[in-house]
Amino acid sequence: MRYTLYDIQQMPRIPRLTLINAISGFKSANLVGTIGPDQTPNLAMFSSAVHIGSEPPLLGIITRPVDGALKTTRHTYQNIKSNGFFTLNHVQEDILKSAHQTSAPYPDGVSEFDAVGLTPVYSELLPAPYVAESHIRIGLEYVEEYAIKANNTLLIIGKVIELIIPDDCVDAQGNLDLAYAGTVALSGLDTYYKVEMLERLGYARV
Amino acid sequence: MRYTLYDIQQMPRIPRLTLINAISGFKSANLVGTIGPDQTPNLAMFSSAVHIGSEPPLLGIITRPVDGALKTTRHTYQNIKSNGFFTLNHVQEDILKSAHQTSAPYPDGVSEFDAVGLTPVYSELLPAPYVAESHIRIGLEYVEEYAIKANNTLLIIGKVIELIIPDDCVDAQGNLDLAYAGTVALSGLDTYYKVEMLERLGYARV
Repeated sequence: MRYTLYDIQQMPRIPRLTLINAISGFKSANLVGTIGPDQTPNLAMFSSAVHIGSEPPLLGIITRPVDGALKTTRHTYQNIKSNGFFTLNHVQEDILKSAHQTSAPYPDGVSEFDAVGLTPVYSELLPAPYVAESHIRIGLEYVEEYAIKANNTLLIIGKVIELIIPDDCVDAQGNLDLAYAGTVALSGLDTYYKVEMLERLGYARV
Repeated sequence: MRYTLYDIQQMPRIPRLTLINAISGFKSANLVGTIGPDQTPNLAMFSSAVHIGSEPPLLGIITRPVDGALKTTRHTYQNIKSNGFFTLNHVQEDILKSAHQTSAPYPDGVSEFDAVGLTPVYSELLPAPYVAESHIRIGLEYVEEYAIKANNTLLIIGKVIELIIPDDCVDAQGNLDLAYAGTVALSGLDTYYKVEMLERLGYARV
């Protein structure tokens, strides 16, 4: 199939969303944990985590601004802005359905943790909840944001201030074994994959 | 293992790079095709492709600015700025080693296509090369860029103007079967995975 921009624009909304969300290739599936001004822990699935840099350690997520967002992601943004911290929590097969279910539009005041049966857990380093069931957890401090004019979205950048990884998933060279950790990969909006390592290729030389 | 920001900052550079590049979860592996002012086709591996939106269809990539970048990614940015177009090309297992090898620092004037044995192919819609061997190919027009202050990187945003997908990898609902297309997933800087579909979960309802 060949699609021009015109063809894409002529597609019905749901197939277009479904297709365009998948074209960049495999994505991460991260549960983003935040806490509201009323102390309600919030949890939302994000597929847009992107590595920004390692010195300092920075990650970004793309979200919609407050007025156009799904309720869960809207709360995520409001909470990050109001308290300055958020967590990213990897998703394994054993919590996949619960994790995906956090994207349902639960009413205000309902914590997605309670609604889907995941457990908030806190570190002394930041006031945002981690997911106890997640094997790999990242604690972040809000750094800055960029308003993307092209479609009114936001790039939110956070600095890694804590990283929790099972001992047997990382070696002294910093190699993190995501397959052993059970982390799933995501395609599009809702299709999850398990992975098998093909090869570590090392630094490419001429 | 638990790492604080201090622990991360105390790590030697290579293990820190290796670890932080892997913590966000699985990433896409895309060959970015551009063409220079001297008509040399350039190809570079990027793991930072991120979905920005589907109406209009927008993708982003993160890169270093001209002064701090690897040679291949520096050329990518210069070429995008000078001619306004770029392509993203998925990587399958059959071209994995060639694709990864594009990240070696080839001299100016050497096309990574020639150096690694991949084939540039052009569409009439844009003057940037696709990779003939890639099953899924995306043609993009440069839209805008954001300079990220926190670490002097750039978010480059492109609009999808062409999309080429094997007929049997996409259905009428827009579902794209990346496993069937052979697209690999990436972890960190150099570790590639093949995938197996677990489940399509659909839209989450309360």
